[in-house]
Amino acid sequence: MLASQQVRLNIRNGTFQQPTAGAAPGFVQANLVILPKALASDFQLFCQRNPKPCPILSVADVGSTFFPGFGENLDVRTDIPRYRVWRNGELVEEVTNISRFWRNDLVSFALGCSFSFEEALVADGIDVRHISCGSNVPMYKSNIATAPAGPFHGPMVVSMRPFKAADAIRAIQITSKFPSVHGAPVHLGDPAQIGIADLSKPDFGEPVPIAHDEIPVFWACGVTPQAVLMASKPDFCITHAPGYMLVTDKLNSQLSII
Amino acid sequence: MLASQQVRLNIRNGTFQQPTAGAAPGFVQANLVILPKALASDFQLFCQRNPKPCPILSVADVGSTFFPGFGENLDVRTDIPRYRVWRNGELVEEVTNISRFWRNDLVSFALGCSFSFEEALVADGIDVRHISCGSNVPMYKSNIATAPAGPFHGPMVVSMRPFKAADAIRAIQITSKFPSVHGAPVHLGDPAQIGIADLSKPDFGEPVPIAHDEIPVFWACGVTPQAVLMASKPDFCITHAPGYMLVTDKLNSQLSII
Repeated sequence: MLASQQVRLNIRNGTFQQPTAGAAPGFVQANLVILPKALASDFQLFCQRNPKPCPILSVADVGSTFFPGFGENLDVRTDIPRYRVWRNGELVEEVTNISRFWRNDLVSFALGCSFSFEEALVADGIDVRHISCGSNVPMYKSNIATAPAGPFHGPMVVSMRPFKAADAIRAIQITSKFPSVHGAPVHLGDPAQIGIADLSKPDFGEPVPIAHDEIPVFWACGVTPQAVLMASKPDFCITHAPGYMLVTDKLNSQLSII
Repeated sequence: MLASQQVRLNIRNGTFQQPTAGAAPGFVQANLVILPKALASDFQLFCQRNPKPCPILSVADVGSTFFPGFGENLDVRTDIPRYRVWRNGELVEEVTNISRFWRNDLVSFALGCSFSFEEALVADGIDVRHISCGSNVPMYKSNIATAPAGPFHGPMVVSMRPFKAADAIRAIQITSKFPSVHGAPVHLGDPAQIGIADLSKPDFGEPVPIAHDEIPVFWACGVTPQAVLMASKPDFCITHAPGYMLVTDKLNSQLSII
């Protein structure tokens, strides 16, 4: 059995309940968004227009509970350790199983996650600060606008990782190979240029130390679609809880375009 | 006849006498170094150990006046508009033809030139400052050591191009595809980190304006091998004069690794 299958099985039977970072190394983990069909086409269009923050890995058929090719027996209703259920843009419940919420008009989206490129950075010997600090990546609302679609619009959320210059250059090369998990950075250097006033005060996640000879490097972040989605206050929506991702059977290395 | 062949013919018959920037667009232009065989193997080793500043495109056979595959009838003795002749590390003469200096023990090196990647940057819509200013690229002696070989050692010379952050990221992607013409940058941001005190005072070339929202990006420079070579004071050596390059029949696009 693949490590990814074992993790999903353990999640399903309740023996794996923690965040999924580090589970099944080498396998792609995905952000999950589940929406009623009435909103799904606008959301898909929004993602298509904003591929850096919202890279679509897969869209399930209407009412379907799996993503083709993402894993034998994968079931989006049971295979994530923690879900968030939203009504009218408000978080109403966190649950470990969404079977009782399932409807035949729901459309599931799997969006790329930076875990995939971070694994490649670490494998290259690069210090990824929030990983070496054991904290969550710092994320900021930027002033970079997304391209709107239907009810969906809003600023891009970015994640930040500090590097010495040579590592920043290498990180750009490595992440450029992974366009389906945010790809190359969207900015580096002066945070004020993208509307960030204080790196020590992230809007999401936790701050990380930045040495005087390091440059902050900013990637489009998977929190963007969730923020944009919630701002539009859909009557019903389910997402994964932050850090509790969908573990797939796809390999991170298979996402590399070269 | 290829545009590159026409340029070489015009150079040979004396009707083309200016710097070669912009001549035969799309074709690879190369730095030329010609050394006695006694020094050539150490120089080749130095280049092999320092591929970013000294990317070898081709090495001619001993005594040979052409590079295989670089152009029909190419003759290194006549096909560059201006040569420099050096004795004991001193520039003794600038000439337009080196036939009278030719010896059967000379080894010719063609080294990659940033013209190739600059063409790719401009084609991508990126402003390359010294090109839009119509000046020579600013170059600086850095404190980055090269890996020594035989008599050859010394600091890396770097060229600098300022960009807004998004263009800097794109420039890293584009130049990464061209490892045989210096490849990705070696540094970006604070010049002091690589021993450069004042960007307005380059050691070679001319300064360029840098806007407050731009980041200086530094590439290993083809002046490095010449500086290192001259510092070793070879008894005899011939190079191209700066800006007067060898125009080959190879296409810049053929240097792209992807």
